[in-house]
Amino acid sequence: MAITVVGSVAFDSIETPAGRRERCLGGAATYFSLAASYFTNVRVIAVVGEDFGRRQEAVFQARGIDTRGIEHTVGKSFFWEGSYLENLNEARTHITDLNVFAAFEPKIPEAYGDSEFLFLANIDPVLQGRVRDAMPQARMVAGDTMNYWIKDHRPALLEVLKGLDVLLINDTETKMLAGNNNLVQAARAVLAMGPKTLVVKHGEYGATAFFSNYSFVPRGEGAEPRPFRAPALPLEEVVDPTGAGDSFAGGFFGYLASSAAADELTPAAFRRAMFYGSVMGSFACEHFGTERLQALSRKEIDERFSLFRELTHLD
Amino acid sequence: MAITVVGSVAFDSIETPAGRRERCLGGAATYFSLAASYFTNVRVIAVVGEDFGRRQEAVFQARGIDTRGIEHTVGKSFFWEGSYLENLNEARTHITDLNVFAAFEPKIPEAYGDSEFLFLANIDPVLQGRVRDAMPQARMVAGDTMNYWIKDHRPALLEVLKGLDVLLINDTETKMLAGNNNLVQAARAVLAMGPKTLVVKHGEYGATAFFSNYSFVPRGEGAEPRPFRAPALPLEEVVDPTGAGDSFAGGFFGYLASSAAADELTPAAFRRAMFYGSVMGSFACEHFGTERLQALSRKEIDERFSLFRELTHLD
Repeated sequence: MAITVVGSVAFDSIETPAGRRERCLGGAATYFSLAASYFTNVRVIAVVGEDFGRRQEAVFQARGIDTRGIEHTVGKSFFWEGSYLENLNEARTHITDLNVFAAFEPKIPEAYGDSEFLFLANIDPVLQGRVRDAMPQARMVAGDTMNYWIKDHRPALLEVLKGLDVLLINDTETKMLAGNNNLVQAARAVLAMGPKTLVVKHGEYGATAFFSNYSFVPRGEGAEPRPFRAPALPLEEVVDPTGAGDSFAGGFFGYLASSAAADELTPAAFRRAMFYGSVMGSFACEHFGTERLQALSRKEIDERFSLFRELTHLD
Repeated sequence: MAITVVGSVAFDSIETPAGRRERCLGGAATYFSLAASYFTNVRVIAVVGEDFGRRQEAVFQARGIDTRGIEHTVGKSFFWEGSYLENLNEARTHITDLNVFAAFEPKIPEAYGDSEFLFLANIDPVLQGRVRDAMPQARMVAGDTMNYWIKDHRPALLEVLKGLDVLLINDTETKMLAGNNNLVQAARAVLAMGPKTLVVKHGEYGATAFFSNYSFVPRGEGAEPRPFRAPALPLEEVVDPTGAGDSFAGGFFGYLASSAAADELTPAAFRRAMFYGSVMGSFACEHFGTERLQALSRKEIDERFSLFRELTHLD
C-alpha cells in the first residue's frame, strides 16, 4: 500500500561531538520517506526553494520516492541549524528559517489520490487537517506534532487528533499535551482525545505503544490490548541524532503499510512495526543527516531487526 | 543457594505526590533482602540502633530472612529523609543521619559462612572489600555503589570492582565511573575495571545488562554475548520509588541464586534474572516503603513476569 507523507523538506546545518555538516538534506518528510521507502511506495507533499536541485532530487529518486507533490517555488528552502554538543538527546536550535515553508499550501497530485496510508509529519495542524480532509480514501492516518503546536495551536491540533489512527510523539510532548506528569495517565488522556494508538518515543530508551482501552495490570475482560515497548539500540557512537524520530515513524508506518502487514493490522503487526521503527531510528543516528538511510539494504534492516529481538527476548 | 547481603538497614521519612510516611523501615539491605527472599534464602549483615525493635525485626522474620548478622548497638539507626515532589525519578535528600552506621564494622555470623552468593549493597567500598575477603567461599559476588564513592573513594572502589561478577549501577554512575558520556563506551570501560557483567539501571525505562566481550553489531566470532535490555513497567501511579533499584538487585540476584538458575548460570538465566529484577522494582514502587514487598505471593510475581514478557516480546 502506498503512503503519502506531508511535511518539511529542508536543509540542515548540524554540529555534534562527531563533527559538523553544512546544509545536509533534511526535514521530517525526507527522513520519514527514506525510512519508509524500504517497506513500501512513498509519495511526498512538500515545498522547496530554488536551492533544492538535482542532487537533492536524486536522493528521493534513488529510493523510488514519488516527488511530484514537492512544489518548487521562488526563494529558499526551510533551513535549520542546530547542535548537540552538550546533550545528544536534545538539539539546541541556533537558526530556524522557514523561508518558502512559511507560506506552504500543500497541493496533492491527482496521482496520490489512491494512497491508503497517510502520514502527517510535524507541521501546522491546520495544514495537517486540510490534507487529511483532501484524502478521504486514506484508511490509516498517522501523525506527529511538537510542543509549539501543543502550546499555542491547541484547538486546531485537537481537531486533527480526533481523526488519527496513530499519534507518534515523545515523552515531554505526551505529558504536555495531557497536562499530566505520569506517562501512563498522560497516555490515557491523549488516547481519549482521539488517536487509536499512541506511540511515545523515549529517545535512547526506545518507544512505547499505548492502545485504546489498554490496561497494564489485568482487570478482567475487555481491557486488552496492553502496551508494547520497543528498545532503542545501545549505540557505540551516535554520530547525529537528527531525524531519528522521523525515521522511527517511517520504519513503523512503512512496515504497517507494507503488503506484509497491511492486509491484517493485528497487534502482532503493530509490535513488529515498533521494532522496525527502532531499527530505522538506530540507522539514522549512525551517520550525519540522511547519509545512512540513503544506502541501506533490506538484508541490513532484517539483521538489525534480529539484533533488536536478541536485545529484548528471553529466548 | 543462600545469599548474604551487607548494607544499610534504616528508617526513611518519605514524601511523594502520593503522600508522606514517617520513619518507614528502609535501607538498601532491607529492600534487597525482601525482594530476594521470594527466590532464595537471604542473610543480612547490618547495624541498627535501639529504635530498631520487634516490629522491624518481624518484617524480616515474616519473610524467613536470617537476621543474626544484624548487630544491635547503642544509639539510633541510619535515618534518611527525602522527597520526590518535582521529579519521581530523583530523590531530593533533606536529611542523612548516619548514626550507628557511621562506625559500621560488618560482623559475619559463622552460620553465614557457606553462602555461595554475596551482595555488597551501596556502602563504603573498604567495608565491601572486607566482607568479600572474609567470605572466600562466595562463588558469585554482585555489588552496587553511588556517585559519592565513585568521586571521592575511587581507589578503594576500583579494588572492589576487580572482584565483582556483577555491578549494578545507574546511567549517571556508569558514565561518571567511566568518565565517558556514551553509555556503550562507558559500559565497556567499566567492564574493563573487572566486573564480568554490568547492569545499568535506567529508572522508568528499565535496565540494560552488558557482558564482557560484548558487541552490538556482528563482528565475527567470539564477540558474544550481546547486551540485554529489560523494560520497566509503565505504572499508572508511582507511589514511592524509594528502594526500587535495591529491589531490582534483589529480584535479579535472588533469581540467579535460586535453585532454578544457580546450577547453570547461562545467558538465558541472566535474561530471566533481568526480568525478575524489573518485576520486583515495579512492585516496590506501588506502595510506600517496603509495604508492597512484604506481602507478595509467588503467583503475583509470576503474573507480573508474564506481563513483562507481553510488554516486550513480538509473539
